[in-house]
Formats: sequence, structure tokens, C-alpha cells
Amino acid sequence: MNYRLIGRTTGQILLLEALFMLPALLFCLVDQDWKVAVCFLLTIAIQAGFAALVLKISHGRQRVLRAQDGFVTVAVVWMLLSAFGALPFFLSGQIPSYVDALFETVSGFTTTGASILSDVEALSRGLLYWRSFTHWLGGMGILVFTLAVVPADRGSGGTLYLLRAESPGPDVGKFTPRLRQTALILYGIYVALTAICFLFLLVGGMPFFDSLCTAFGTAGTGGFGIRNDSIAGYAPHLQTICTVFMLLFGVNFNLYYLLLLRQVGAVFQDEELRCYLLYFFGATALISWNIRPMMSSWRDSIHHAAFQVSSIMTTTGFSTADFDLWPPLSKAVLLTLMVLGACAGSTGGGIKTIRLVLLFKGLRSNIRQLLRPRNVELIHVNGQVVDERVMRGVNSYMAAYWLLLFSSIILISVDEFSVESNISAVMACFNNIGPGFDAVGPTSNFSVFSNFSKLVLSLDMLLGRLEIFPLLALFSSHSWSRRL
Amino acid sequence: MNYRLIGRTTGQILLLEALFMLPALLFCLVDQDWKVAVCFLLTIAIQAGFAALVLKISHGRQRVLRAQDGFVTVAVVWMLLSAFGALPFFLSGQIPSYVDALFETVSGFTTTGASILSDVEALSRGLLYWRSFTHWLGGMGILVFTLAVVPADRGSGGTLYLLRAESPGPDVGKFTPRLRQTALILYGIYVALTAICFLFLLVGGMPFFDSLCTAFGTAGTGGFGIRNDSIAGYAPHLQTICTVFMLLFGVNFNLYYLLLLRQVGAVFQDEELRCYLLYFFGATALISWNIRPMMSSWRDSIHHAAFQVSSIMTTTGFSTADFDLWPPLSKAVLLTLMVLGACAGSTGGGIKTIRLVLLFKGLRSNIRQLLRPRNVELIHVNGQVVDERVMRGVNSYMAAYWLLLFSSIILISVDEFSVESNISAVMACFNNIGPGFDAVGPTSNFSVFSNFSKLVLSLDMLLGRLEIFPLLALFSSHSWSRRL
Repeated sequence: MNYRLIGRTTGQILLLEALFMLPALLFCLVDQDWKVAVCFLLTIAIQAGFAALVLKISHGRQRVLRAQDGFVTVAVVWMLLSAFGALPFFLSGQIPSYVDALFETVSGFTTTGASILSDVEALSRGLLYWRSFTHWLGGMGILVFTLAVVPADRGSGGTLYLLRAESPGPDVGKFTPRLRQTALILYGIYVALTAICFLFLLVGGMPFFDSLCTAFGTAGTGGFGIRNDSIAGYAPHLQTICTVFMLLFGVNFNLYYLLLLRQVGAVFQDEELRCYLLYFFGATALISWNIRPMMSSWRDSIHHAAFQVSSIMTTTGFSTADFDLWPPLSKAVLLTLMVLGACAGSTGGGIKTIRLVLLFKGLRSNIRQLLRPRNVELIHVNGQVVDERVMRGVNSYMAAYWLLLFSSIILISVDEFSVESNISAVMACFNNIGPGFDAVGPTSNFSVFSNFSKLVLSLDMLLGRLEIFPLLALFSSHSWSRRL
Repeated sequence: MNYRLIGRTTGQILLLEALFMLPALLFCLVDQDWKVAVCFLLTIAIQAGFAALVLKISHGRQRVLRAQDGFVTVAVVWMLLSAFGALPFFLSGQIPSYVDALFETVSGFTTTGASILSDVEALSRGLLYWRSFTHWLGGMGILVFTLAVVPADRGSGGTLYLLRAESPGPDVGKFTPRLRQTALILYGIYVALTAICFLFLLVGGMPFFDSLCTAFGTAGTGGFGIRNDSIAGYAPHLQTICTVFMLLFGVNFNLYYLLLLRQVGAVFQDEELRCYLLYFFGATALISWNIRPMMSSWRDSIHHAAFQVSSIMTTTGFSTADFDLWPPLSKAVLLTLMVLGACAGSTGGGIKTIRLVLLFKGLRSNIRQLLRPRNVELIHVNGQVVDERVMRGVNSYMAAYWLLLFSSIILISVDEFSVESNISAVMACFNNIGPGFDAVGPTSNFSVFSNFSKLVLSLDMLLGRLEIFPLLALFSSHSWSRRL
């Protein structure tokens, strides 16, 4: 294990997190909210001190970063980020339990949006800003950000391993030979799209602070609202802006880069995008028809269906209606969308559309193989042959996914909620969505669970965001053994 | 497609089914139940006529049977078996709807045990006997039976393809060079174990007819009871006999053959068996502790927990208590056991323990591979290297499993039952268990569903019993194209 480089990367990122708390501090000062301001200052001081200590200890000549170091770094960084990020909530007393504050922060960074707060509006603006900003940071990944802006000698493979371990999806695209440049381009697109979303909301008539926080929640596909009724209280045209931007942030960012290069054809040939849009329109049509009797007009029912489908399939979790009251067919479709998730290389969670495409193609090729044992079957995506190793990775991911899902459901069942609540709570956390059904429906929150279950669900959120393997690597004896 | 051989095999099997209805007819005659007797005679006549026609059409020189023919034969045979097997229920008017009769028969042959009957005891003895006997026939597979007793020239690979397509589990063991002999040995063990189970129940004080039907239900891990309260009304020691025999019939029958060869060591070294027993004892311990407050003594709570765990994990579905009322933790464990299922090469359903062992090992090897990209990782089971093709098969199976599971849940959601009911109904049918939770709990039945949902669930039962691929092959254009 390359402790020095892990330490150095962790230290840099914690310093950055402290820096990112400054705008929140500014809101406190503007509001003359002295108590919370002091809490932010205290957190920044503790964090900067800890980071300086880690950086000092890990000073020295660097060895090359290996695959296992990449995984462990990502796991450690995300756990520490959440542990420190929870401090302002806890110190200010506005979330009195540290476990609750941790749950809320993990939920923020992993862009889940599951909350333990029953009265969000009671939080002061500085905290609300920080809570929504964690979505934005977690969406594209703070490590990717660090790789983009902080120069460091991590060896040839180092940056790649870190980028791979943090980025969602089976594989990371490399459009430019230099990875730092890739990270910079991705963040550039991310910042630009967020700014456009913010402007649309602002021009559409949403207050400045609301626009800012909603843009962060939409961009990160997070889903923390700053009002108790999530997005339901805003005008319909503002909700439609959210529908469109949630969908846009669920698309693989590589495609935006291709658009910048004017390769429009390649974008619309992309099999993952086609499948993603097919889900969206198919599910919206089905649910619109299914909830029509509950709504006053077709327009209303399409509006709410499109918003909810976009929100759930991109794993954002905003809501404009209490979909827990919708008919079972709509709920079953939403439950399925929870698992599918957004595209790889987007800010969304879930299994990712491309994995489903690969599983489906793998299945088809296996049936052909069974029927014609002598033929050789290859799997193609976007005209290219998919490597056997990628398929094995996808299959292992799925095995781990179901294994951890069922284990989590059993673990949180000790809290005596309904089977439906438990299944949907684990699904909503593991897939980084937010709200589920029944006890954790859109009008309820996760405060009902015990501390034990909250910790299990926090771990599920991290497992979902980091796509399982970094955390499994952290707990694997193979990472810690000295043998090569 | 080799239509002649498919036709010949189908004809032989339908004649056999007609033959197997004779004991049921005997019970009708003993009870002087003339109406049902006539219905059985009519069914036998229709079936024999149809079979004779098919045999006549498919007369002629045989070509070699290929893999695709094996799959299609199995799918066609099982559908026709169910279609004809349902006739006595329907013609007698004791199940007035043909869809209901079909559901009940598919449930019987696939050893699911899900019922649409609210009053089982109202059925006449001949029909009750036939209903339970379908479990016994479906358990080990009627095609395996045909291969064992009916000599036919199916070419070198033919018998193997048929045996593979009907037998549960990733691969069929071949202990003897001649496959017919393998099939004979398997059936010999099956008959002997069923007879022992029957004798135990009879000596234990259960009436003759009850013992016979319960032995069929236990041997096939089916779960049709002949009383309205399933097994709850019998004395506790009779229930314990069921607990033990359900567990025995969930074990891979190859191991019994090894026992006959006195290779006791190899049996207890078997990784699948160890894992299977671990589930059983682990789940029983957990549930015993969890339901203790609801029971009068530790003895009672262990008794009911062991029975229910054995019944659910072997996918039998008998019940001694209404486990729908048990605490969420117990329900979550039972839900997980529903998916796991019994061992490959047993009469039980579900994913099968060996697949889980393989998935877990595949996952572990993939993590090692990620951490040490240059190492080559092989997967071993029982000391032997697992072929890459077997792993690919297991992974495709899982992909198809989840895909079909979610699709079925969405389809039956049109009936407006709770999400919990729908999930557990599909799980209970797909994994060939029988009862689920809520609307389909052990004290309820499947009659509440619409005809559409009953057909979807019938297809799920067939998909589960035949392990998906034969039915997918039937609907695949590759089976029907003339190109090689």
C-alpha cells in the first residue's frame, strides 16, 4: 500500500473541502447568523489542521500509485469528506445527533438526497447552502476535481486509477491523451451546464438562493430540496426546467464533449443514450396513462409523470407529487427505474443504462451460444467489440449489487418497518435516489430508522456512489497484504 | 429444427401422462365418484388420441437431435403436459375456469404449489391425488423419466441435450458413461426416498391417502397440501418428518449416488452441500430467536422456524404457521431464502445454491483481479477449475432472472395489489415456492388475481422450473431460422 500518496491526496482534498465551506460561511455572515458562522469556522480550522498533519506525515518521495491504492484512496477520501462535512450540522445543534448529521452529509455527497429532516425550512441558509453544495461536489466527484486543478506527480497510472475508481460506469473514456485535461474538460462542461440551469431557474422567476440550491441539486442529481414540499411549491414551468435538466445531467458527459466537437451523428448513434431516452419516454407514457384518473387533465398527468420519471431514473429524487399514493403499476415502474439508473459517466446513480445494455447483449449472445454451441459469439456496443474483462466486471458488479442489497434489507429489518419500506429504503439509498415508498415515501423521511439502520443505509449510499468495488477493496485482505 | 424427433418425444410423453392418470381414476372408482371418473377417462382418451396423431405425423427416419431441438422439445412438452393435465379439473367443474385449472396444473408440474383454491378439501380424492402427483412427476422431470424407461434412437448428443435442458442447475453430472443409466439411477433414488418418506408418515400416524399426497408434495418440493391449513393440522412429529425430508429432497441427487458408492468423504466435502446446510442452520437460528416472543416455548419457536426455513429454501411451500404475521426480520430472511433456493440436481427451485457459490467466487476473483491487474485468477469448486463457459452461463442466467422478475412485477401490477404482494407473488412463482406475503400469504391464495396475471404467473413458474433458457429458446428466432 502506498500510504504516502494516499495521505497526500487525502490531505489535499480535505483542504479543498475546507475551502468550499467559505461560500456557506458568507451566507451566514450576510444573515448575521453568528452561531452557525462560528461552527463553520471551527470546522474549517479542525479540517485544515487535520489535513496539514496528514500532509506533513506523508511528505517524502513518491512511489508509483497502483490499482489497489486508487481504490483505497477513493474509499478513505469519501469517508473522511463525509465525517468532516457533517460537523457544521452537528456543531450548530441544528441536527443534534452526529449519526443523523453524518447520514445527511453522506446522502449529500453521494447525491442521494435521502433526508432525516422533517422540517428542512428550519435550517439556516448557510447550512442549507452547504447541504445542497455537497450534491454538486459529489456529483462529478471531488477527486476528479482535485485531479483537474491540483498538479501532482502520481506516476503514469496513478491518475487513471483514481479517476477510474471514482467515476461511475464500467469504464472511463479517454478523449485526450492527458488525463488531467480530460478531468478539466468534464468539469468545464459540468460548471457550464449548472450555470445554464441556474440562469433558467432565475429568469423563470425562482428566488436567487432557491435557484442556486435547486441548480446544485439538479446538477448533482442529488435531490435535497430547500422547502418541505421539495419542488411541489414552485410554478409548473420551473418544474419543467428541472425535468429537462435532470434528464440532461443523467447523460454521459462524454457525449457533450462529442457535441462540442460537432460529432452530432456519433451522439445520436450512442446505444446507451438511445436506450436511456427509450426508458424515459416509455415510462412517462405508461405512468401518464396510469395516473390520469387521479389528475385533473392530461397535461397535468404528463407533467407529473415526466417529472417523476426524470427524477427517479436520473436518481435525483425531487418530487412534485406524493407518488407513494400512485397506483401499483406506476409504483412498480418507478421501482424498476430506481434500479436502472442513469448513464455511465453522468452524475446519476443506479446500475447505469450501459450495464443493462451489456447484460442484455450478453444474455442474447449466451442464448445463441446455447443453440449453436459451435459458433463464436462476440458482443458489440457502438460498433466496437466489448472486451471479455469488461463483461466479467459487469457481471461481478451485479452479483455484488444483489448480495449487498439483500444483506442490507435483512440488516435494516430489525427496525420492524414493512417489507415494502425496507426494500424501497435500501433501493433508494443504494441507487442514490432519495425517497422510496411507504415509511420512506416522498412526504416522509429517514428519521424513523434507528442509528444502526442509518449507518447501514449510509454505507449503502457510499457503496452505490462509488460502485461497490472501492469499499470492498478497502475491506479486502488483498489490499493490505504485503505480497505482490 | 428436427420436428420429427420433437413430435415423437412429445407423443411418448403425453401417452405416459395419460397412463399416470390411471391411479387417480382408481381413487374415483373406489369413492364411486362417477362424474370425475368420466372426466379422467375423457381426458385420457383426448390425450391418447392427440399423442397417437402426433406420433403418426412424426413417423419416419430420425435425424440427429441438436442443442436447439433439446430446448424447444422441453418447452413444448411442459406446456402441453400442463394444458392436458388441467383438463380433469376443468371438465369436472370443480375448477370452473380453464385459466384457473391451468394455473393449478402448471403450479403442480413446476412444483410451485401456488393455488387458486380457497377450499382444497372440497376437491374429490381423485383430483387431489392427481394434483399432488403432478408435483412428484414434475420434481425429477418427466422427460428424465421418459429417457430412463422408453428406449429411443435420439443420436449421440440427443439424450444429453434433453437431460440438460430439463435438469435444474448449471450442469448435469454424468456418473455413468450411458445417460439412460444415469436417468435410471436418479429415478431409482427418487422412488426409494419417496417411499421412505411415505412410510415414515404412515407409521407416524398420518392417514394412508394423506401420507401418499404429502409424500408426493414433499418429494417434488411442491407444496400442495390436501387440507385447508396445509400441514398445520398434523401432529408436530409429522411436521418434523416433513422438515427433514424437504431438506433431503433439496440436496443434489448426485450426492446420494456417491453415498451409495460409499464415498462419504466426497459428500461432506461438497461445497454446495456445506453452503446449503449453513443457510439452513443460520436462518433457523435467526428466525427462532426473532419469533420467540410470539411462541409459547423455545421448542415451539425452533420447530416452526426450522419447518418454515426448510419449506421455503427447498421451495416447497408447506406451512405450519402464518409467517405473513412474523416480524419483518424473519420475513426479510424468508424472502432472501426464496431467491437462493435449493441445490442443483435436486427437485427444488430458486437460483440454486451452487450458482450463488459460483457468483460469490466470481466476485472474489474479480476483486483480486482489480487489485492486482497482472495476476490470472481461476475459480475452483470442489477442487476443480470452473470453465469460463459455465461462469458465463451463470451470469446470463442471473441477468435473465432479474430482467424477467422485474418485467413480471410490472405486468401483474395492473391488478392493483400492494407492491409487497406483487413482489412476493412473482418471487414465489418464479422460484417455484408457492405462498408469498400479504395478498398471497400462506392463509390466502392466488384466486384474487386477474386471468391475465394468472397467465403471467404461470409462465413465471415454467420459466423458473425450466431455468429460463428453454422457453427463451422457444421464442428465439435463432431456433426457427434454417441457417446453421
